[in-house]
Amino acid sequence: MTAKKRIFFNEVATRDGFQIEPGFIPTDDKVALVDALSDCGYAKIEVTSFTSPKAIPMLRDAEEVMGRIRRAPGVEYTVLVPNLRGAERALESRADELNLVMSVSETHNLANLRMPREKSFAALLDVICHVDGKTPINVSLSCCFGCPMEGEVVLDEVLRWGERFAGLGVRGLTICDTTGMAHPAQVSRMVEVLQQRFADLQLTLHFHNTRGMGLANVLAAVQSGITRFDGSLGGLGGCPYAPGASGNVTSEDAIHMLDAMGYDTGIDLSKLLAVARQLPGIVGHDVPGQVAKAGRIMDLHAPPASVAELREQFA
Amino acid sequence: MTAKKRIFFNEVATRDGFQIEPGFIPTDDKVALVDALSDCGYAKIEVTSFTSPKAIPMLRDAEEVMGRIRRAPGVEYTVLVPNLRGAERALESRADELNLVMSVSETHNLANLRMPREKSFAALLDVICHVDGKTPINVSLSCCFGCPMEGEVVLDEVLRWGERFAGLGVRGLTICDTTGMAHPAQVSRMVEVLQQRFADLQLTLHFHNTRGMGLANVLAAVQSGITRFDGSLGGLGGCPYAPGASGNVTSEDAIHMLDAMGYDTGIDLSKLLAVARQLPGIVGHDVPGQVAKAGRIMDLHAPPASVAELREQFA
Repeated sequence: MTAKKRIFFNEVATRDGFQIEPGFIPTDDKVALVDALSDCGYAKIEVTSFTSPKAIPMLRDAEEVMGRIRRAPGVEYTVLVPNLRGAERALESRADELNLVMSVSETHNLANLRMPREKSFAALLDVICHVDGKTPINVSLSCCFGCPMEGEVVLDEVLRWGERFAGLGVRGLTICDTTGMAHPAQVSRMVEVLQQRFADLQLTLHFHNTRGMGLANVLAAVQSGITRFDGSLGGLGGCPYAPGASGNVTSEDAIHMLDAMGYDTGIDLSKLLAVARQLPGIVGHDVPGQVAKAGRIMDLHAPPASVAELREQFA
Repeated sequence: MTAKKRIFFNEVATRDGFQIEPGFIPTDDKVALVDALSDCGYAKIEVTSFTSPKAIPMLRDAEEVMGRIRRAPGVEYTVLVPNLRGAERALESRADELNLVMSVSETHNLANLRMPREKSFAALLDVICHVDGKTPINVSLSCCFGCPMEGEVVLDEVLRWGERFAGLGVRGLTICDTTGMAHPAQVSRMVEVLQQRFADLQLTLHFHNTRGMGLANVLAAVQSGITRFDGSLGGLGGCPYAPGASGNVTSEDAIHMLDAMGYDTGIDLSKLLAVARQLPGIVGHDVPGQVAKAGRIMDLHAPPASVAELREQFA
């Protein structure tokens, strides 16, 4: 008997998911949701973002949320940090990890972060110097599989930015398919190179389901040896360039698939589905996740009454 | 330069998709849709079903549809046939192929076809004898990856029913994941055995996206050598045991993925997406397919005006 291979999930719904929701979600709901997710067995939870409250009013309660959540043993509580001021707030809030973000596409970085990539890099360098190894740092690189405005993003560009951060001693890189442009063959090719190039780093893959390929891309990444994924409860999140399409890979759907395939996700799927089923009530609308609606593969249904009658009739 | 590997798609929206739609779809719309699909490059289209008009009123116009569609060269027009009477009607309508169906799960067969599997087999044997090799026959086996009422379906059961039909000289078998219970590891394992056992038959895989794994299962099947798939435009179809969940694998999403990966699907994706975008108007509701909403990977977007300003500012 061989041990099941361990896959680590980082839940991003309360940050990446919530930040594009139109109506403010009460702090109590955020704290309760993070606490419920803590009980499910996640390796990591991206709780909130220490951005300017003006830029993202939804996450203006970052300090309060971080102060009120229960810290479950074994779960890392990470936060998004855009700059030095954010890093100071994150450290005061005792975040277990700082997640920095910039895009490998110049146009996307300008559109999304309102500065050229070099300016972003300089700001993140300030953060890394300030943290000075006292707290682990992860860097999420957006648009690694393509940019919705520039189109193709060459692998060398992903490697170039990855290496600049690796050289600064970050613990991990998250390779983001920010707008759901990745396909499985591309994932396999890229992951192979990334794993060789960044063998000492925690490599996390972040997919969107914009074009329906989210779980196929997770599968391709797992087949190529990736063990860390971002997921968003209910598939919350999305991107402004693909209106009508669904958002981040749904955590519970990805976990359900890998669980069925025999991987050890560390997640209690029953608990997770119970939490996922509360989500539409929290955000006030239907969410894309499917396993919460359809049930797990082996959640069976009673046969219709006619079956017993027919069995008798044909006996 | 190596030739791209060919993948063959069978479009089932006008049969498998339409038959669970609540409101009757006018015959003119059905004919126009099949004709539009014929221009997209499908290998096969399952046009309609020669069932009793009382059982499935939606498809009561089967003869008229088959009589009025334009037969495009290179496209096979197949029809579902439940029994001898259906076979006679199908042959009169000059179907290129008869698709027979039964379930490998006794309970599902009783619930869905209202008779034990042996009775179904006997009825389909009548059809096969009647057709007598004059028209190719495909057999779709339901619930090959699990039954929503019985649970697990053992591989031997799939093989046993497949072999009974193979022994009768059918041209192909469609291995159906009727209620979206398959996962990629199971698909890989099963496909390997099926391809050895039925090396001389056309093997088609029919997936549902009930639990979000549709494209991941297509990927696993393609990786294991499968070259034929059923798909449903817009992801129409579904199953009564998974309310709220999505239906068949979406043709255009699966084709888009395989196309991006470098497979030759024979499909003109631009034309197909144009047809897919008409579908909500035909059925009167939103459909699950995502590429029709989000556009193809390389359907790029113009940057916001701020990007040009920022470029200047930081120049």
